[in-house]
Amino acid sequence: MQTSPFIGELIGTMVLLLLGNGVVANVVLKRTKGESGGWIVITAGWAFAVMIGVFVAKAFGSVDAHLNPAVTVAFAVATNDYSHLLPYIAAQLIGGFLGATLVWLHYFPHWATTPDPADKLACFATGPAIRSLGANVWSEALATIVLILGLAGISSKNLGELAIGVGPYLVGMLVWSIGLSLGGTTGYGINPARDLSPRLAHALLPIAGKGASDWGYAWVPVVGPIIGGIIGGLLIRWYTL
Amino acid sequence: MQTSPFIGELIGTMVLLLLGNGVVANVVLKRTKGESGGWIVITAGWAFAVMIGVFVAKAFGSVDAHLNPAVTVAFAVATNDYSHLLPYIAAQLIGGFLGATLVWLHYFPHWATTPDPADKLACFATGPAIRSLGANVWSEALATIVLILGLAGISSKNLGELAIGVGPYLVGMLVWSIGLSLGGTTGYGINPARDLSPRLAHALLPIAGKGASDWGYAWVPVVGPIIGGIIGGLLIRWYTL
Amino acid sequence: MQTSPFIGELIGTMVLLLLGNGVVANVVLKRTKGESGGWIVITAGWAFAVMIGVFVAKAFGSVDAHLNPAVTVAFAVATNDYSHLLPYIAAQLIGGFLGATLVWLHYFPHWATTPDPADKLACFATGPAIRSLGANVWSEALATIVLILGLAGISSKNLGELAIGVGPYLVGMLVWSIGLSLGGTTGYGINPARDLSPRLAHALLPIAGKGASDWGYAWVPVVGPIIGGIIGGLLIRWYTL
Amino acid sequence: MQTSPFIGELIGTMVLLLLGNGVVANVVLKRTKGESGGWIVITAGWAFAVMIGVFVAKAFGSVDAHLNPAVTVAFAVATNDYSHLLPYIAAQLIGGFLGATLVWLHYFPHWATTPDPADKLACFATGPAIRSLGANVWSEALATIVLILGLAGISSKNLGELAIGVGPYLVGMLVWSIGLSLGGTTGYGINPARDLSPRLAHALLPIAGKGASDWGYAWVPVVGPIIGGIIGGLLIRWYTL
Repeated sequence: MQTSPFIGELIGTMVLLLLGNGVVANVVLKRTKGESGGWIVITAGWAFAVMIGVFVAKAFGSVDAHLNPAVTVAFAVATNDYSHLLPYIAAQLIGGFLGATLVWLHYFPHWATTPDPADKLACFATGPAIRSLGANVWSEALATIVLILGLAGISSKNLGELAIGVGPYLVGMLVWSIGLSLGGTTGYGINPARDLSPRLAHALLPIAGKGASDWGYAWVPVVGPIIGGIIGGLLIRWYTL
Repeated sequence: MQTSPFIGELIGTMVLLLLGNGVVANVVLKRTKGESGGWIVITAGWAFAVMIGVFVAKAFGSVDAHLNPAVTVAFAVATNDYSHLLPYIAAQLIGGFLGATLVWLHYFPHWATTPDPADKLACFATGPAIRSLGANVWSEALATIVLILGLAGISSKNLGELAIGVGPYLVGMLVWSIGLSLGGTTGYGINPARDLSPRLAHALLPIAGKGASDWGYAWVPVVGPIIGGIIGGLLIRWYTL
Repeated sequence: MQTSPFIGELIGTMVLLLLGNGVVANVVLKRTKGESGGWIVITAGWAFAVMIGVFVAKAFGSVDAHLNPAVTVAFAVATNDYSHLLPYIAAQLIGGFLGATLVWLHYFPHWATTPDPADKLACFATGPAIRSLGANVWSEALATIVLILGLAGISSKNLGELAIGVGPYLVGMLVWSIGLSLGGTTGYGINPARDLSPRLAHALLPIAGKGASDWGYAWVPVVGPIIGGIIGGLLIRWYTL
Repeated sequence: MQTSPFIGELIGTMVLLLLGNGVVANVVLKRTKGESGGWIVITAGWAFAVMIGVFVAKAFGSVDAHLNPAVTVAFAVATNDYSHLLPYIAAQLIGGFLGATLVWLHYFPHWATTPDPADKLACFATGPAIRSLGANVWSEALATIVLILGLAGISSKNLGELAIGVGPYLVGMLVWSIGLSLGGTTGYGINPARDLSPRLAHALLPIAGKGASDWGYAWVPVVGPIIGGIIGGLLIRWYTL
């Protein structure tokens, strides 16, 4: 079969969500090995999820390995080239849905043993620490700007060509940083494919004892990151980073 | 003496098991320095165990440094070359047994001070968080597929040749990722030499106050990873990753 | 717009403070996702904050990426070239103020939910574990000497040119080391732009329920690091590291 | 002034002990920022202490950057060249004493606030989790063999020349691995300059409220690592790793 940017973005985002939401499930669901592992476990897990997602996306044909509509928007704005926008975002959203489904299947016996529906939703989509939609959108936008500036910094032509294999690792560490430092408010969605698609999976899948999917919040981790992506992309363009 | 792929796989897997099951012993046994260190300690310990095992295996003559029959199966399927299958797997199983024996000897005074036989078995072989053999096999298979795809991604020819020394490190981080995110269900055996050989060691060694070796579960972390390895290998082959 | 060393130092230090004080806010403020995450979270967060700050500073035009007046002083002393001293330090102090302001805005809903004013100040400026100003200055100076020697070691010409992308990562790990090992006494200010500017932000911003800014201690994490920077710079010069 | 291998080993080992025992002081002493940070903090701190020690040692003129008499013995045995043995070990022992003294001074106000003398000794020298001298010597020897094999693996000519800057980092991760996995029994002395010299400092310095220096155990983390170093060196030589 043929690898391609579309397949790469799809499989890469699927792996990203499987590993990323997998660590949330490990910490939040009951009777797992990692139960109550804490913030260091969750943020480390997401960091390596990004790293592995990027490696897999590249192997399956996506040189860019965005895995995130906000990143795709940012680089479209930065380069003024919108040709990849729709196919990449479609692939990412499909991949996110599939990855979330795999988390459900991987932790299958643990849904019934976890009483609180909110814990189950947390294994799919983000929710705010304090619900205040204006502040939450702002938080998501700012964290996404840092993501875009960090990506621009890591791949800056001022540095030269990165040693091979180092780039995806550094991108993972960037996401670790954002999680540790800025994730405290909204759980760092910073990626619509990480939040919207898994939320849809939560709504559609027959998860044992699930509750509502909190659709009232669903626009926040979409709009915030897209705003952040646009601002970040404009900064890259204006400063030709 | 002569280094060789056989010696490399054997010594590398021995070191992998010594360090990997060593961290479990440190966290699970009583009156150790790392007692109750938590999931971050266990998964970090296994990650670095893999990294050091790979470095040592390469130094002792195994360029491949699989250290895992499921990986050997995957790359045999991927390349349609089964010539290494038996010697590698034999070396890995022997190395796993020796490494488990070294853990027993290293933590020698702590077996008698640990009352629960289940804690002692955990220092040799994996056990499921919730016993549900179908779900457990599936969990092991899926985690192994991610292992194989991650390995294919890290060494993808799309990236070019990795900076020297970076490869084994990234493989360690891949295993950290799998542990953090997917290890919550079955403790991420994902390697028959990590589970079957140490379980045999548990059965044979005169461990103070030991209990049963749970042979009823022993096939799960063998069959699951082999299934995962075959599927992963087919994916590499079909997509020529 | 034009990148430049001034802009690079300013934006880089802003990102450093946003991520660095962001992790403190995540751990110390109430009702965050990372509440009570512990010392490993704080030190990891600051480590990656430095790494990302350095990458961003370089992308925005600062090859040096000091982000720290004590480092700028050290390398001025080491090279006997004081031409960058004033513009770099001005940029760093402005960036530090802006970064601290962004932390306030990012965690906006959490200031009112956190009762203790001392916890809020901790999200801006450092304070001593045991107040003993002589010992505190000494602690800050020694930790800064280690920072300077570590930077000199990482970039030593005895090693040759670092693999690209590796340098900023190693600098982050150096700061992780200092935090883990020497941060226990004064919270490792080791950087006037990390302490003085955010303390000023704390004094000026209308933070809900804030207390005093502890100006009596403010000179310690300025004077200590400058002394350490001078000594470190002299060591680099005398030994031509 | 002139850099040299002697100066490099001395300053590098001093920095190693300052950072290594510094993290123990941060976790074990009372009223520090990192109090009760746990095993992940201690092992991470020692890992980065090694990394920074190696970078600094190289900058100050020691290409080898052993920082450990057991490593010096191992490579003397491996190469059958004993010319560096005495000067290196002398430099390491002096550096270890100085580094331990700096830890005492860095954490100066905290000795009086820590009631238990055993906690204070732990900031200088190692002690066994379960006192059983035969088992303790064996544990130290085995952990040191793993250290030597890991060093041989990381620098193996089978890999080629490491990317610059990566070597010292990997050595740090190797020590993280040993701490996590094998440190549970004796606290992984694995280095006479890390244990004997700081124990002497503990005995000589006027530490507030100190107790005995446990000289009855002092030979264990000297003899064990030396045995391990000799065995590791012989393995390198026999296999020409």
